[in-house]
Amino acid sequence: MTVKIFDTPEVHDFLKTVAGFEQEGGSDRAKQIVHRLLSDLYRLIDDFDVTPEEFWATVSLMNELGKASQFGLLSPGLGFDHYLDMRMDAVDAEAERTGGTPRTIEGPLYVAGAPEAEGFARMDDGSDADSEVMWLTGQVRNLDGEPVPGARVEIWHANAKGGYSHFDPSQSEYNLRRTIIADDEGRYRARSIIPSGYGVPAGSPTDKVLKALGRHGQRPAHIHYFISAPGHQHLTTQINLAGDPYTWDDFAFATREELLVDGRAVNDSAEAEARGLEGPFTEVVFDITLARTAAPELQTRHKRPRALEEAAG
Amino acid sequence: MTVKIFDTPEVHDFLKTVAGFEQEGGSDRAKQIVHRLLSDLYRLIDDFDVTPEEFWATVSLMNELGKASQFGLLSPGLGFDHYLDMRMDAVDAEAERTGGTPRTIEGPLYVAGAPEAEGFARMDDGSDADSEVMWLTGQVRNLDGEPVPGARVEIWHANAKGGYSHFDPSQSEYNLRRTIIADDEGRYRARSIIPSGYGVPAGSPTDKVLKALGRHGQRPAHIHYFISAPGHQHLTTQINLAGDPYTWDDFAFATREELLVDGRAVNDSAEAEARGLEGPFTEVVFDITLARTAAPELQTRHKRPRALEEAAG
Repeated sequence: MTVKIFDTPEVHDFLKTVAGFEQEGGSDRAKQIVHRLLSDLYRLIDDFDVTPEEFWATVSLMNELGKASQFGLLSPGLGFDHYLDMRMDAVDAEAERTGGTPRTIEGPLYVAGAPEAEGFARMDDGSDADSEVMWLTGQVRNLDGEPVPGARVEIWHANAKGGYSHFDPSQSEYNLRRTIIADDEGRYRARSIIPSGYGVPAGSPTDKVLKALGRHGQRPAHIHYFISAPGHQHLTTQINLAGDPYTWDDFAFATREELLVDGRAVNDSAEAEARGLEGPFTEVVFDITLARTAAPELQTRHKRPRALEEAAG
Repeated sequence: MTVKIFDTPEVHDFLKTVAGFEQEGGSDRAKQIVHRLLSDLYRLIDDFDVTPEEFWATVSLMNELGKASQFGLLSPGLGFDHYLDMRMDAVDAEAERTGGTPRTIEGPLYVAGAPEAEGFARMDDGSDADSEVMWLTGQVRNLDGEPVPGARVEIWHANAKGGYSHFDPSQSEYNLRRTIIADDEGRYRARSIIPSGYGVPAGSPTDKVLKALGRHGQRPAHIHYFISAPGHQHLTTQINLAGDPYTWDDFAFATREELLVDGRAVNDSAEAEARGLEGPFTEVVFDITLARTAAPELQTRHKRPRALEEAAG
């Protein structure tokens, strides 16, 4: 049986009480946003005749998501991270901060405090002898094509099984995580291993949500970046290694045409030797263009709870 | 800087992709509801210029809520439980199932499997010698005033500190939880202790949400009931002991005029003796009127994940 009660004075008054409109304390913005959020959700319950069973199953699923710390994993799966990027792109376009390397989502797997190196770093701990060696390099420039010496290039990526150090206890501390300070020409170089794609854990609450939508939880192979330099806009981005079957079917919606990179397989021993490598390797080149800005708040990443990162003051 | 991107074809198309409209599998109802939910949330982000910082703080709070299993505690605080009651009341009114004792919210603290007794039960384990003795009794009748013999009366309530057995490890198993089968006259009797009100744990994620709204997390002293009998509509309700300062300021919005009960303080030793008690006590009388129904699905409580209750088949 269908009833509609949302548009009654009783419900509208109740929503104001629940959102704390009658209380002196608290935050006006929180009250306004919660009032809107609850109005939307109450109306949804009415419009779809959501049953108590459906409601409580959802509450239970939300407890499960939190217990597994997966709201930050479900969020990109529900497109929020990409949607926030779209909004930031629109803000940049309105302010005419355009033309640089595009942003894309951060994801929930950054860990603060990775070892810093000047110009070059080896990122893998050498424990995975079967993996493909990756030579990852590029140059940081401004929109006029001039190098940005000393740019801070933070890189993190998965291993050949799709796992991330810190979250995957089988890996050493900070494996495949480094901060490289670009050299006088704005160049950074890293020796690492080719990462694999990543899937949300099978049977996890995030997986359940995606399955209910007929969707999978796979990501193509990718490499995360934070790039920053004084006087330039902070950039959060990723590159995708071309040829992955999930390139245009990323559950997190992070792929962008400009961020697709072809790895170059190199078998030439002279090329290997020039880089201090012993055998075949894959070279991945990712040059970065930063927009200039004088605004300090645009020069750092936005605040977000991150592993091992101290809360901003 | 303010941008509005929600009403663009790009965002509308994206929402369809995210909700799985392009996928064969999954549940159509889940897709429709998630599409609506995400549309509402994306629009809210746009309308309120929700910042990435605000968004990620919310994600973090949701992880905290889940880790503490508090979505079922926050839910009544945000009025959802009462709103679902309002909807069920409206359904009953439309079906002319009215006139019985009103329902009110279940709350998250029911535990299945409490000891069963015929006619009378002592609910407290006797460990709290300082607490006030409560004599709790009443009669279950139908709308014509006829007794309902054998009605199943499940009662659970907090101790004098506001804690519930099972969730409060200092209490014995099933303390203050009993199922009483009403006698031939539909009567139930219980000896217990007067419960205290209850507050959400200070500093807990639920408390943080309520504080942001300028609200508290207190409930007045109350006693939970499930009442059922074949051929009658299952009733989930609570009574409030009159005189509590939070009676009309319950953070969970469960109070109803018809469910306010005055305790009667009894000092007469003959009255005590007649009930097998030794000293002064407080008598609480709650008579219950059940509506008749032939529909089997109305004769049982709705499905919901509950402590120690097996998932319904």
